[in-house]
Amino acid sequence: MPTLEWDLPPGATVAEVGEQAIIDWVRRAAPPPPPEVITGIGDDAAVLDRVRNHVTAMTADGLIEDVHFRRAWSTPSDVGAKALLVNLSDLAAMGATPRAALLSLGLPSTLTVHALVALLRAFIDVARVHRVGLVGGNVSRSPGPLFVDVTAIGAAKRRKLLHRHGAQVGDALYVTASLGAAAAGLAWLERTESTTSMDSWSAGVESVFPPPARLAAEAAQPLSGLDPVVAAAVLRYRRPDVRNRLGQAVGRARAASACVDLSDGLGDALRQLAAASDVGVHVEAAGIPIDAGARAVAQRLALDPLKLALSGGEDYELLFAVPQRSIRRFLATVARAGRVPVTCIGRVVSPPALDLERDGQTERLPNGFRHFKGSEIRG
Amino acid sequence: MPTLEWDLPPGATVAEVGEQAIIDWVRRAAPPPPPEVITGIGDDAAVLDRVRNHVTAMTADGLIEDVHFRRAWSTPSDVGAKALLVNLSDLAAMGATPRAALLSLGLPSTLTVHALVALLRAFIDVARVHRVGLVGGNVSRSPGPLFVDVTAIGAAKRRKLLHRHGAQVGDALYVTASLGAAAAGLAWLERTESTTSMDSWSAGVESVFPPPARLAAEAAQPLSGLDPVVAAAVLRYRRPDVRNRLGQAVGRARAASACVDLSDGLGDALRQLAAASDVGVHVEAAGIPIDAGARAVAQRLALDPLKLALSGGEDYELLFAVPQRSIRRFLATVARAGRVPVTCIGRVVSPPALDLERDGQTERLPNGFRHFKGSEIRG
Repeated sequence: MPTLEWDLPPGATVAEVGEQAIIDWVRRAAPPPPPEVITGIGDDAAVLDRVRNHVTAMTADGLIEDVHFRRAWSTPSDVGAKALLVNLSDLAAMGATPRAALLSLGLPSTLTVHALVALLRAFIDVARVHRVGLVGGNVSRSPGPLFVDVTAIGAAKRRKLLHRHGAQVGDALYVTASLGAAAAGLAWLERTESTTSMDSWSAGVESVFPPPARLAAEAAQPLSGLDPVVAAAVLRYRRPDVRNRLGQAVGRARAASACVDLSDGLGDALRQLAAASDVGVHVEAAGIPIDAGARAVAQRLALDPLKLALSGGEDYELLFAVPQRSIRRFLATVARAGRVPVTCIGRVVSPPALDLERDGQTERLPNGFRHFKGSEIRG
Repeated sequence: MPTLEWDLPPGATVAEVGEQAIIDWVRRAAPPPPPEVITGIGDDAAVLDRVRNHVTAMTADGLIEDVHFRRAWSTPSDVGAKALLVNLSDLAAMGATPRAALLSLGLPSTLTVHALVALLRAFIDVARVHRVGLVGGNVSRSPGPLFVDVTAIGAAKRRKLLHRHGAQVGDALYVTASLGAAAAGLAWLERTESTTSMDSWSAGVESVFPPPARLAAEAAQPLSGLDPVVAAAVLRYRRPDVRNRLGQAVGRARAASACVDLSDGLGDALRQLAAASDVGVHVEAAGIPIDAGARAVAQRLALDPLKLALSGGEDYELLFAVPQRSIRRFLATVARAGRVPVTCIGRVVSPPALDLERDGQTERLPNGFRHFKGSEIRG
């Protein structure tokens, strides 16, 4: 990756280097674009070649300082990585293969070049791992918060797309991996008034170019000393795993009737899937795979681990509806895709049921996160 | 267009109605999507069908409060319209036909529903006029400025794309329409400390649904009383014209060797085209079509009208390099496309010349607008 080609005093700010130097740096640092990129950074628009027999999936999502992250809780590289990952999760939930991304930055004039470079490096690292071309975007000054807005473009065969609609009464409901860790990590950061990441935003220019390190190791560094199970939950909040391979594999195998990601919590995802498919859902609380870290944090903070899993959001796991006749194919596909397990949590029923069965009682599923309702932070 | 389906007290804020109600409103208000939209608002990602033999152009640009606009100077509908128009201008400069857009909103909690609805209506009106499907995006709370980030997707045949590179020594340089009006309008708003648009952000709910009016008439309203030539310049700043039809027509006719839009000023556009094509440019100041409004404002404010045209930016006109053998075809294409004239302002020469000939003297072309260099506002 190139070094910055200007003389930087320690603590130099983005205002001192300017927009064009930042764009030039990104252009040189971005990985070689995939062959289907006809035009990358540097023209009025980027151009992607068509992929034979594929349609185009596109999504936009962003992270806003003090809404989706805080500098005290997330490092610049967390923010850069997560900004792309949350978009890749949306493509995964469509069964689409990511191809390209546009990156729009709103930068406070006082942001250090150190922090910006760390953010961009992490974004580019994620792009490289997922073979996503960084093909354009824009850089602006922000008079307030730092924000990072991303558009991701993917490709899928039309008949292999996973939609939110399509679930049928009788389908089984599966979720990937385990839930609640990210919400638990966030709760931990809130309750302990953590400031572990604050220094990473202001560190001097001498640490701009650390030796290459694996993302997870780098991310874990400020958490040394923390109980590993809590640290893992905090990391899940700061850098979600996304289920791209699994989403694509299930889409290609046509093994699910509907899919949605859990960005706003399992409760919200179930409601979205039910509304889009015009069905109801019945979920058994005992079947929900609550993350071990979420349980540990919940115990220490006297929180309900089930609530973290249902309402917390930020997990970026996938929820699938799977027709009974496809369950064997679905499970075989999951097994082939690798290390991510799935768990059956309930079934699709007639509308308008949105039922959660817990200790023999049936209650209504909670809602997920909503902007403007309360002021808590979320990612 | 649907009315909002909740009870609104006068001056209601976006925080009171919440994210989901806003998304639902947009979904109902958006024009019927073009047939190639397979999935619009409401899934994890939008999906566009392929256009036979076409490649995909994509661009992202946004407007940030107090950086790209001020509430005192631009109405909510100006902001909504311009946020899409600046992206359509980028597609025009590629010769691409716009197809779909994603809209990302960062909303201060105190923003009135009145202002948001006006902004969205204008965005949707522009989308309808240009046949752009509003297929997705996201709504977040912003702890600081209002911002509107847009991604626009277009289609073009690969061999008919207009790039910044491709200009050859000997090509003629043409610009569309006239230059400097937007910069003059902005200068007028700055110097007069205008607050003509401020009320439009806070007006009570009773004016949320005015009778349908043409965009220009609606936009011009707060300017009544202003000298028409000045008002026209201010309007060009607030709502740029974009040259979509012309860009597409020239691309299809393969009548230009390179093209760039003038978002950051003619000087910047010439530099970008020269750098991308590895050529120089020679421009005659006397040939630059300076807008009549720009001249009038410049006279009153004692500004240099040529400087407004060269450095001001915001014009969203197009700059073309046209091979000598294609000039007749280029001019015929322009004439067929309709009402937008073009003017030859100079020619492509050997690098590294970036020459401006003025009153018999040759000077170096000025730069365009840059973020972080100075704190002035721009759009």
